[in-house]
Amino acid sequence: MADLNAVKQALREQRIETPSWAFGNSGTRFKVFAQAGVPRTPEEKIADAATVHRFTGVAPSVALHIPWDKVADYSKLSAFAAENGIQLGAINTNVFQDDDYKLGSVTNPDPAVRRKATDHLLEAVDIMDQTGSRDLKLWFSDGLNYPGQDDLRLRQDRLAAALREAYDRLSGDQRILLEYKLFEPAFYATDVPDWGTSYAHCVELGPKATVCIDTGHHAPGTNIEFIVAFLLRQGKLGAFDFNSRFYADDDLMAGAADPFQLFRIMYEIVRADALTAAGINFMLDQCHNIEAKIPAIIRSVLNIQEATAKALLVDRDALFAAQAAGDVLEANSVLMDAYNTDVRPLLREVREDAGLDPDPIAAYKRSGYQKKIVADRVGGQQAGWGA
Amino acid sequence: MADLNAVKQALREQRIETPSWAFGNSGTRFKVFAQAGVPRTPEEKIADAATVHRFTGVAPSVALHIPWDKVADYSKLSAFAAENGIQLGAINTNVFQDDDYKLGSVTNPDPAVRRKATDHLLEAVDIMDQTGSRDLKLWFSDGLNYPGQDDLRLRQDRLAAALREAYDRLSGDQRILLEYKLFEPAFYATDVPDWGTSYAHCVELGPKATVCIDTGHHAPGTNIEFIVAFLLRQGKLGAFDFNSRFYADDDLMAGAADPFQLFRIMYEIVRADALTAAGINFMLDQCHNIEAKIPAIIRSVLNIQEATAKALLVDRDALFAAQAAGDVLEANSVLMDAYNTDVRPLLREVREDAGLDPDPIAAYKRSGYQKKIVADRVGGQQAGWGA
Amino acid sequence: MADLNAVKQALREQRIETPSWAFGNSGTRFKVFAQAGVPRTPEEKIADAATVHRFTGVAPSVALHIPWDKVADYSKLSAFAAENGIQLGAINTNVFQDDDYKLGSVTNPDPAVRRKATDHLLEAVDIMDQTGSRDLKLWFSDGLNYPGQDDLRLRQDRLAAALREAYDRLSGDQRILLEYKLFEPAFYATDVPDWGTSYAHCVELGPKATVCIDTGHHAPGTNIEFIVAFLLRQGKLGAFDFNSRFYADDDLMAGAADPFQLFRIMYEIVRADALTAAGINFMLDQCHNIEAKIPAIIRSVLNIQEATAKALLVDRDALFAAQAAGDVLEANSVLMDAYNTDVRPLLREVREDAGLDPDPIAAYKRSGYQKKIVADRVGGQQAGWGA
Amino acid sequence: MADLNAVKQALREQRIETPSWAFGNSGTRFKVFAQAGVPRTPEEKIADAATVHRFTGVAPSVALHIPWDKVADYSKLSAFAAENGIQLGAINTNVFQDDDYKLGSVTNPDPAVRRKATDHLLEAVDIMDQTGSRDLKLWFSDGLNYPGQDDLRLRQDRLAAALREAYDRLSGDQRILLEYKLFEPAFYATDVPDWGTSYAHCVELGPKATVCIDTGHHAPGTNIEFIVAFLLRQGKLGAFDFNSRFYADDDLMAGAADPFQLFRIMYEIVRADALTAAGINFMLDQCHNIEAKIPAIIRSVLNIQEATAKALLVDRDALFAAQAAGDVLEANSVLMDAYNTDVRPLLREVREDAGLDPDPIAAYKRSGYQKKIVADRVGGQQAGWGA
Repeated sequence: MADLNAVKQALREQRIETPSWAFGNSGTRFKVFAQAGVPRTPEEKIADAATVHRFTGVAPSVALHIPWDKVADYSKLSAFAAENGIQLGAINTNVFQDDDYKLGSVTNPDPAVRRKATDHLLEAVDIMDQTGSRDLKLWFSDGLNYPGQDDLRLRQDRLAAALREAYDRLSGDQRILLEYKLFEPAFYATDVPDWGTSYAHCVELGPKATVCIDTGHHAPGTNIEFIVAFLLRQGKLGAFDFNSRFYADDDLMAGAADPFQLFRIMYEIVRADALTAAGINFMLDQCHNIEAKIPAIIRSVLNIQEATAKALLVDRDALFAAQAAGDVLEANSVLMDAYNTDVRPLLREVREDAGLDPDPIAAYKRSGYQKKIVADRVGGQQAGWGA
Repeated sequence: MADLNAVKQALREQRIETPSWAFGNSGTRFKVFAQAGVPRTPEEKIADAATVHRFTGVAPSVALHIPWDKVADYSKLSAFAAENGIQLGAINTNVFQDDDYKLGSVTNPDPAVRRKATDHLLEAVDIMDQTGSRDLKLWFSDGLNYPGQDDLRLRQDRLAAALREAYDRLSGDQRILLEYKLFEPAFYATDVPDWGTSYAHCVELGPKATVCIDTGHHAPGTNIEFIVAFLLRQGKLGAFDFNSRFYADDDLMAGAADPFQLFRIMYEIVRADALTAAGINFMLDQCHNIEAKIPAIIRSVLNIQEATAKALLVDRDALFAAQAAGDVLEANSVLMDAYNTDVRPLLREVREDAGLDPDPIAAYKRSGYQKKIVADRVGGQQAGWGA
Repeated sequence: MADLNAVKQALREQRIETPSWAFGNSGTRFKVFAQAGVPRTPEEKIADAATVHRFTGVAPSVALHIPWDKVADYSKLSAFAAENGIQLGAINTNVFQDDDYKLGSVTNPDPAVRRKATDHLLEAVDIMDQTGSRDLKLWFSDGLNYPGQDDLRLRQDRLAAALREAYDRLSGDQRILLEYKLFEPAFYATDVPDWGTSYAHCVELGPKATVCIDTGHHAPGTNIEFIVAFLLRQGKLGAFDFNSRFYADDDLMAGAADPFQLFRIMYEIVRADALTAAGINFMLDQCHNIEAKIPAIIRSVLNIQEATAKALLVDRDALFAAQAAGDVLEANSVLMDAYNTDVRPLLREVREDAGLDPDPIAAYKRSGYQKKIVADRVGGQQAGWGA
Repeated sequence: MADLNAVKQALREQRIETPSWAFGNSGTRFKVFAQAGVPRTPEEKIADAATVHRFTGVAPSVALHIPWDKVADYSKLSAFAAENGIQLGAINTNVFQDDDYKLGSVTNPDPAVRRKATDHLLEAVDIMDQTGSRDLKLWFSDGLNYPGQDDLRLRQDRLAAALREAYDRLSGDQRILLEYKLFEPAFYATDVPDWGTSYAHCVELGPKATVCIDTGHHAPGTNIEFIVAFLLRQGKLGAFDFNSRFYADDDLMAGAADPFQLFRIMYEIVRADALTAAGINFMLDQCHNIEAKIPAIIRSVLNIQEATAKALLVDRDALFAAQAAGDVLEANSVLMDAYNTDVRPLLREVREDAGLDPDPIAAYKRSGYQKKIVADRVGGQQAGWGA
């Protein structure tokens, strides 16, 4: 049996990073439905992220997206975050929204575009120096829509060169998180389409480069917890972008589409004692196209907490024993016992112990924060993917 | 052996409808890359569509999208099209871009929104009365992002009610084409997700309602030519939205991703003698996010022509004989013989016979049209999905 | 809030049918791993099915597979089942294991093979007359491995003719359950590949023909609960073949791969009040290739019970209210509240109320039954897919 | 423009290895349909493989499968092959058909089973010493059917240990080809599920270990030519198992399901000048469940030849120029020009130049070989997956 005190302790120490852009508007190519109260500035996004942390207690940092969160003075922004009780987290680069990037950024056939894109990566490290961020998260939308459009191999050479430049610019404990994605916005070939590609580049770059797993970026049928276990074994799992999906990169709330999968992922983390010690950045990366954003992010945090609590409750001694004995049904049953447990009472206790409201969603609703931002945030340009 | 004169005759009579919106800007949720020379008005779109017809000879109609192609006087627009040598085709409704439609249009839980959406369908039939269009194409983005979000069954009841109203408004040879789509923009459940759903509604509506197959709207592994053959057998195949895809609804040029699949689809059409006689509307529905739009549409038309030519070349007597004999390899071989034939010389002949340039892409390039529209279409608001 | 007494009552009345063949050996094309104690005769399969019922209390019938369960006297077999406390259920036809069926059964290009296959369907109805079975379950492995191999449309004509003969042979309350399957053993086209095809044939056949949903027979991404809700609305859902899958037709224990999906399916059943009243046959159809068979089947029954209990616990008033209000997060939360509940204590109560051991797996282990069959069933030919 | 003489020269030098087991019976879990004339001994399989080579001229080696092709004296078997005009090729291990392997072979929780499986790998190298084979092909069916069944990470440790033993046993130019597969026969997790896993192990093993790509072993939507290009860049592409699929591991004839994909794969090979120089073993791995086996294998060889011929015809200068210019449509068009070419006349020439019949299928039919083996191979035990 899992030690309940240790479980509670682990749950108290868990850390989930929220993404600044998830507080802004998002949508599909068909329509972005704007919501009232959405932040208009990086500071307002940070205020929302701090609100999520205030009610959950486990979301003490917020990832930024450059240039969406561009400010003149990042140390001031960092101080603002600290005043609000949170920290600035990973710096996300954006080399997909400039007209120059139509045919790619760091893999573009045009060397001038590659230079511009690579310079943006270096600029992001400059920003990290100011924010004190450890993580440079790189996602490249680069790819092809048509067979023959560009040379698959040359694009890898170009990618490797840009990654090398960015890697060499890192200092201190800074590191690269290299994300992969099966498709979208490229519809034939993507330059970093799977964990294998990201892994191979990270191995060649060196120890400061690790893979970022976005849970929505896989082909149908991919066993994500296998990738988690494998990368942990190789020492190359750097971060998660949590979200959930039924089809493609749906970016729904984590745990909403397949809570059992999320539990299996968290079990591999727990089984490798990697919940806090391994330096993995557990981030959210989601789009709340139709639901209220702050409560959706709180819900996502709670879903990850619940999956983690279940993973911590797995009776690992009993599991290993059944596995070693080749008892298929018993081993499965031990895992399912933990999954089938209702961990919400336990998490309420953990929150109460930490001086938090046991029901963060209800507490947020009662707090009046939503009403306040709807009233206050009138005029200006709402944040979204375009700005 | 197929009769070459009959093949040529069939190719001359083939008709493909181009979509007005494919001449405008399009993109992904990440970025719309605007292109120079893109039309700003319905008239400019029609001019581009007419250009495609001028060079291909088989694209004599253009589908409109309301409200993107809203004009004060549709009979004037119709006359404008005629002056340019083409006709107005299917009227596409749009009940997905108004803020009211965040939770659905005709299936929205709010009856007022349903009323508004249904009224739009009726308005589209009014437009058809003016344009002389036969086809009302209905695509509903309606669906859910989260389990429990709304009641799956009630939404079918609401859908059926709206379809009934629209159906009852049809007159003369007007008809409904009901499109289905697996997902996007809804990411958990879509109200018309597959051909079965569309078919069942069409059967209940009556003979004027038929299914529209968008070749990019299926789950991985779906055998589209089976659906084509099945709907032809049931007398319920009304139209195609041609495009191609490697992953989801990629909306690439028809024939670009899997030319063999396109051939198999066209074979089922030819085998059922449904290329012209069955009243099927062979439309394109594509997004040219990174490639030049008019030549991409010409290329798509040529790809469909080539697939059709190969389908017409299938030695059906030999094929039926091998099938009846249970000779798997021979039957497959007869089909592949046609597919492996290079039909481009034949199509060049067909074009020359019709007084066209044998190479429409080259002729378009030489024509100076692209240069002209880039020079002329300066200022104003470029057409796109938003307008 | 759901009425707990009504929930318990519903759980007591739930009925799940076990498949005789799941007690026999099964495997993949690579290997069948035989297990000790596996039945050698239909009677031994029935004894095992009765054992599952004895410990679960909700599995009072067993489906037969002809010719795997061929006996000289079916009324005797029926009596044997009754003595063991269960009934004979659906009769499954098998038109895929005779050498004649290499290129199909009822859709075979050879009329003699079609005749033979159709006769087998009629023979199955004869057996139903003797066993008192209501349900004729039809699954056709018919399909093509290669494009061109046979004519897609002619095969539909042949299928329709065979179905018509079988339908016309039905009497009393007998009915046809028409199963569909995306692929396997056919790898290019399957003659009944999706619910739409099955539905269309069932509509044409008449009221005694309904669709059977095998939960493992869909393309990736298919929303099965949508199909359930849709077929319920059309009055055409006749049965389930429950199992679970991560990839293809994996035939794993129901609820093992995606317990949340199973819950969503059962919610649609509960929401339509179709758990008992609608005449749906809730069957298992699984392969226990590596795990002990009887406990695996008990576990599957328990998994369905747990999903059903959660579905019954959904606060439907609260759910409908949130849905009507368009409150996405609240509606999702109401559903998830039920899913996140640990229903195992409730089910233990239900079992104790019915005089059963609250833990059927443990009780089975203690019972000595497994030891007994391993000791007794020595020699002879173990049952499997081949016999 | 491609140099036609160089194209012909490359086509003459192409080498494709046939698999001994494809000449034997195969099927699905539902049924193996035996065929007349199927070989009963390794020698008869070799005779069939030699026949394929005699008619195609490009299939001069045959891969063996141990223990299916176990003989007392492998040097004698090698001499027999040489007398028949071919060579023995890769040695395939089989650690999936013994009862001990129910829960895995080299990753089994039981160390005794792991020892047995690893010893089989070493035995296979012994055989290679006798046959003179260079390639040890390793495919592990190892995996899990249920979450929790065994520990994902420990299984990787066990896998690595077994691979290391086999690797250290290699001598001379011997090497390991490590195959990966998404799923089947394991249905939840597979121990080598994707190219990334195979690649990571191969990198750790050393230069004599390379990845084998089976074209049917990927998740839906996987871009295989990307993997080809990537592994070529990393110097880690060792071999192909060619076949084609619409759904899962369908094992259909190469080029039958998606000839355009096969062309794109071969283009990456040609583009990297890896058709002959890179030491890649181009093998077939197919199941001819319903079609005649020898002509199906000839057809597969022809399909690969045709794809290769088209790839060789790509005007690489024009392609690189269009790619460098960012001309999406022109680059795609250059590639498609080659694909749309009918290369069958060219291949007929190549064959005639080599003294072969220009139409290998027709020549095989005329040869009387099929009639002879049907007449001769009566009695005995037909070869299949079981023996």
